[in-house]
This record gives sequence, C-alpha cells and structure tokens, in this order.
Amino acid sequence: MKKQILLASLASALALTGISLHATSTTEGAVSPIRDEPILPIKPAANINLGMVELGKKLFFDPRLSKSGFISCNSCHNLSMGGSDNLPTSIGDRWQQGPINSPTVLNSSLNIAQFWDGRAADLKEQAGGPIANPMEMAFSHTLTIEVLETIPAYVREFRQVFGKNKIDIDQVTAAIAEFEKTLVTPNSRFDQWLLGKEDAITQEEKEGYALFKDSGCTACHYGEAVGGTSFQKMGLIEPYKTDNPAEGRSAVTGKDADRFNFKVPTLRNVELTYPYFHDGAAKTLAEANDIMGRLQLGKKFTPEENAKIVAFLKTLTGDQPMILMPILPPSSDKTPRPNPFGK
Amino acid sequence: MKKQILLASLASALALTGISLHATSTTEGAVSPIRDEPILPIKPAANINLGMVELGKKLFFDPRLSKSGFISCNSCHNLSMGGSDNLPTSIGDRWQQGPINSPTVLNSSLNIAQFWDGRAADLKEQAGGPIANPMEMAFSHTLTIEVLETIPAYVREFRQVFGKNKIDIDQVTAAIAEFEKTLVTPNSRFDQWLLGKEDAITQEEKEGYALFKDSGCTACHYGEAVGGTSFQKMGLIEPYKTDNPAEGRSAVTGKDADRFNFKVPTLRNVELTYPYFHDGAAKTLAEANDIMGRLQLGKKFTPEENAKIVAFLKTLTGDQPMILMPILPPSSDKTPRPNPFGK
Repeated sequence: MKKQILLASLASALALTGISLHATSTTEGAVSPIRDEPILPIKPAANINLGMVELGKKLFFDPRLSKSGFISCNSCHNLSMGGSDNLPTSIGDRWQQGPINSPTVLNSSLNIAQFWDGRAADLKEQAGGPIANPMEMAFSHTLTIEVLETIPAYVREFRQVFGKNKIDIDQVTAAIAEFEKTLVTPNSRFDQWLLGKEDAITQEEKEGYALFKDSGCTACHYGEAVGGTSFQKMGLIEPYKTDNPAEGRSAVTGKDADRFNFKVPTLRNVELTYPYFHDGAAKTLAEANDIMGRLQLGKKFTPEENAKIVAFLKTLTGDQPMILMPILPPSSDKTPRPNPFGK
Repeated sequence: MKKQILLASLASALALTGISLHATSTTEGAVSPIRDEPILPIKPAANINLGMVELGKKLFFDPRLSKSGFISCNSCHNLSMGGSDNLPTSIGDRWQQGPINSPTVLNSSLNIAQFWDGRAADLKEQAGGPIANPMEMAFSHTLTIEVLETIPAYVREFRQVFGKNKIDIDQVTAAIAEFEKTLVTPNSRFDQWLLGKEDAITQEEKEGYALFKDSGCTACHYGEAVGGTSFQKMGLIEPYKTDNPAEGRSAVTGKDADRFNFKVPTLRNVELTYPYFHDGAAKTLAEANDIMGRLQLGKKFTPEENAKIVAFLKTLTGDQPMILMPILPPSSDKTPRPNPFGK
C-alpha cells in the first residue's frame, strides 16, 4: 500500500512538470523494440524545458486567451477525453459550429505538420491559429498580449522563462507548444508487446494486428504515432461522400492533385477520440474501420475481421498524461474583461 | 530539493483523492485558533468517502452530462479559476446568457444552502439543477442515466461505490456533492495568522481587517467561509440598482419581506472570484467594497481605507485544491451522442 502511494505520488510530482514516467515500467530488460514492425513504441518526451512547460500548461488551460473568456485550448483538446472534444466538429465563440473535427493533441508532436491540411509546420505555429480564428477563440494576438501583460504573475513567469522585458505572441505559442510536446502516451498494451511482453495483447488482438498489416493499413498508419506522417487522399478506391466543404491539402498547396488529401490521423488512443474522420461522420471505430477498408483499400471486412481489427486498435490506448490542473493567476484591475455576449 | 519533490508528490497523491493536506503545514504548535475572532480558520475536509470522491470528480468534469457534450460542472465552476468562471453571468447551452453570477464551488459545503436564493438545501440537491436547466447544461436526469448506463467503466465504478445494480440520479448527485465537499481552501495567510503566525499578514492587512470588523462587515461575513451563513438584503441603506431581474430569497419563500434577500457570498478566495455580486456587475474588489460600504453600511470608505480592506481580503486566498485531471471512461458504441447543434 505504502509503495503504491509513493509510486503514485512520484508520478504525480512528475505530472506537475508534464513529464511522463510511465514508460519506464515497460522497459524491464528491453529498452528498444524487440520486434521488427511498422509500428514503433512511443518514446517518453525528452529535451523538455520545464519552465516553458509549466507556463504553457497555464496558457493551454486559460480561457482568457479567448474573446469570451470561456474557451481555452483544453475546451476542444480536452485532456480528460483523449485530447479531443468527442464532437463531430467543435463549438467555437458564440456557439459557432466549427468547420472540421478537432484532432487530438495527444502525440501531436509526432505529426509531420499540424491541422488536417498541414497548414501549420509545427505545434508552435498551430497554437497561434485558434486564438485568432473568429470561428474558434475569436481573439487576436494583440489582445492576448494586452491581457497577459496586465496579469502580474504572468509577467513575472514570462520574464523568468524567456528572460525578456516584454511578452510577445512568439513566447505564448512557444510555451504552449512545449507543453504539448509532453503530451505523449507511451506504455500502451501494444507498445508493451512491441517491447517484448508477449501476453500484453490477446490472441484476438494479435490476429487483428495481422489483419491490419496484411490488409495494407500500415501503408499509411505506421511509425510511432501509427499515422500523422503523410498526406493521403480520402476516398482512394471509392469516393468519400460528405457535406463537409473542407478541401484538404490543396487549400495549402494550390495544387489540384492535392484535393481531398488530408493528413493521416494518428491511431494512438483512437478508442478515446471518436467520432472519426475530418468531418467527424463516423461514430464508432467499427464504422470507421469498415469505411476505411472499402474506400482506401477496396476491402470489405467481415464482421469478425472488423471486430478483430477494432480489438487491436484498442490496444493502442497509452497512459494518458497525468495533469495537475494549473491554478491560473488572477486578472488585475487593469486586465481587459472578456466579452462573451457583446459585439 | 529531494524533500521538496517528495512533499509535492505526496500532496499530489492526496490530490488524487481530493484530500487536502495543506493545512498541516500551518499547525505547528497550534491546532485551534489562538485568536478570538469572528472569522474562523477553514478546516480540511473530513469524513470523506474516497470512492465517491473519485467518481464525483469524473462526473464534475464530464461534459456528457450536458446536451451538447461541451459543458461540464467545471465549465462554470472552473477549478483553475477559483471555482468560478470569472464572467458576470455564465454561458449555457447554445451560448445562452445565464441569469445570475456563478458562485464559487470552493468551500460551498460551508454554505447554509445552495444557489444565491438558497433554493437547494445542500450540495447534493444543487448538483441536479444545472444538468436539467435548459439555460445551462440543458440535459435531463433521465438522459444522464441513459448515457452513464452505456459506459461500461462508469457502470462498474457506480456498482463498486454504491453497491447497486442500477445507476440513478441520486447516486450521481451524491458523488458530485462528495467531491465538492473536498474543495475547501485552508491555509490562507489570514488563517495562518488566526492560528498564531504573527507575521503571516502585514501591518496594512491587519489594519484592513480592523476596518472590516469596525465597519460592521463581519455582521454578515463571519465564520469559516466569511459569509455563506445567512440571507441578507442587497441594498440595505441605499437601494442596489441593477438590470438583473433576480428577486432573491422571495422566489423561494414567496414572502415579500424576502425580496432582494440573497445568500451572503463567501469572501474566501475573493481575489480569484471576480466579478462580484449576484449580477456580476462589480468588476474589481475595490469597486465591490466601495458599493458594499455605501449600500449595506452607509459608510463611504476613503481610498486609503478601501485599499487596506482590499489588501486584507486578498489574505483570504487559501491553498487551491490540487486536482489531478480525471481520465474519463470512453463512450461505448451504444452511448447516445451529444447534440450540440441540433434541436
């Protein structure tokens, strides 16, 4: 009992810093995968600036980065819910319906680029987007700085972390990105199996993985994040039917050939990140798997095959980041107040 | 350094259970207040059912208790922000403007009754209100149970905690209330002073407290929560002018004499719970203090007096509950999906 509490508490202390300890428990006698597979075990976060992480965590949870004072990064990338909002498309300022499904923030540091169309090169560039998007947080970078500069504890913390006399949006997005780098989910049962623990996954799950590989899913869903590393056409064999107007990668490159190309989503923690696809139209993993088989691979999975693949996919749920909720520094009398209902 | 980490980690482990350890550090040689004052130090939570607390914490953070799947208890009683939303009135389902300022959930177990008009006898009764209020979470108790009954991990956890075969709304509200009982904030600097640490508050803060007492504020703001124990008329000496239509206690009792009587709010953590009053019209502590002085006591504080009282009020900020964010159990294929934009 005592040992259990101490372990939990040590992990919690590390959670304070956003550092994940989980993976260590899997590495008994195995520090690298002993299996040669297209999927690689997730590595715990490394090369982390703890000061930036703690500051970034506060900013990630701070709704004062929105016009309404009600929406924070965590509203749509909820760390209690697999880093997503479990809605087809998100709710933005004044309850506006978002244009696309919120991808999970978990393991997003492993993505080739950010957003479904890859229009942001990295997490830092991404973080500035929703703050200023009138459909999302509906604020502006200038107003964000005006708010932060009037909150004494933020002023001190930015100075401590960045060593500059003024807060700027680059510092804000750099800190948020640094926090997000810590949001990896090692130690899934599948990773335990990759690292040599034979009974970490069941026979059914192993058969599901074999089907997943043999059917060609790993052509796109490979690597640490089991996706996130390439752009692919949605509806390769059969066209994908949707009312969602998103064009995908062509909106960034301007090339017709990139139309309906989207970033392949990670399948890590996919059990938690329903509904699926860029339009959030697939409610369940079984439905998503069925559609992917038919549209991308020209393959109709039997119900038994589908169930096995779904069972495998659920082994990709890793240890969720343990987040000690930040206590946000209070506004001062000078801080501009949020404006949820006004013009 | 090592000791510091262990202390932090032990506290974090207890935060897991919602139990606050903070007060122990203040009690060196003093287990009860050594000063005879109208304000009493806050006691850490006791007689807590840990299983109910952990379940209640999940429910408190679970937006699936709302029609939209977007609003949880924590949306308006944000534990990163003093248990409030720092908005004049809250944002409800479809961005509806709430009728009244969200009171803090912190130390709410010490209130004589819940809501501004006291229409709920206790936390358990309160917890059912917002879930079913069409202006707030816009769900129903029946739909809440339908959702929870389809989430296998919830079904098991309710069974473990309550020992019954079916989930009902009484269990839901009892668990949320039990979690909320843990949200006390001991160890404020003022409490440290009450418990014998002479230099825990400054000379200015002591003078502010003397003014607070001598002006008559403690007639209503007394006890552990520095308020929360009586209903009083808003605008006793001078009428309070507001566009807010709330009638106060008379809406519950039907008595004309109770018109504009509201529950005296706690002043614990008042630095964090701006804006103030039932209509959220006072943006700053200085403004709220000035209005209270004039309308309730017929006293116009000088700027110096006001500043001293505000300085005292800021000593009432206690240790905030350390909350390890719960990881919510995923919906199953059978779970009804949220309906944020539909009818």
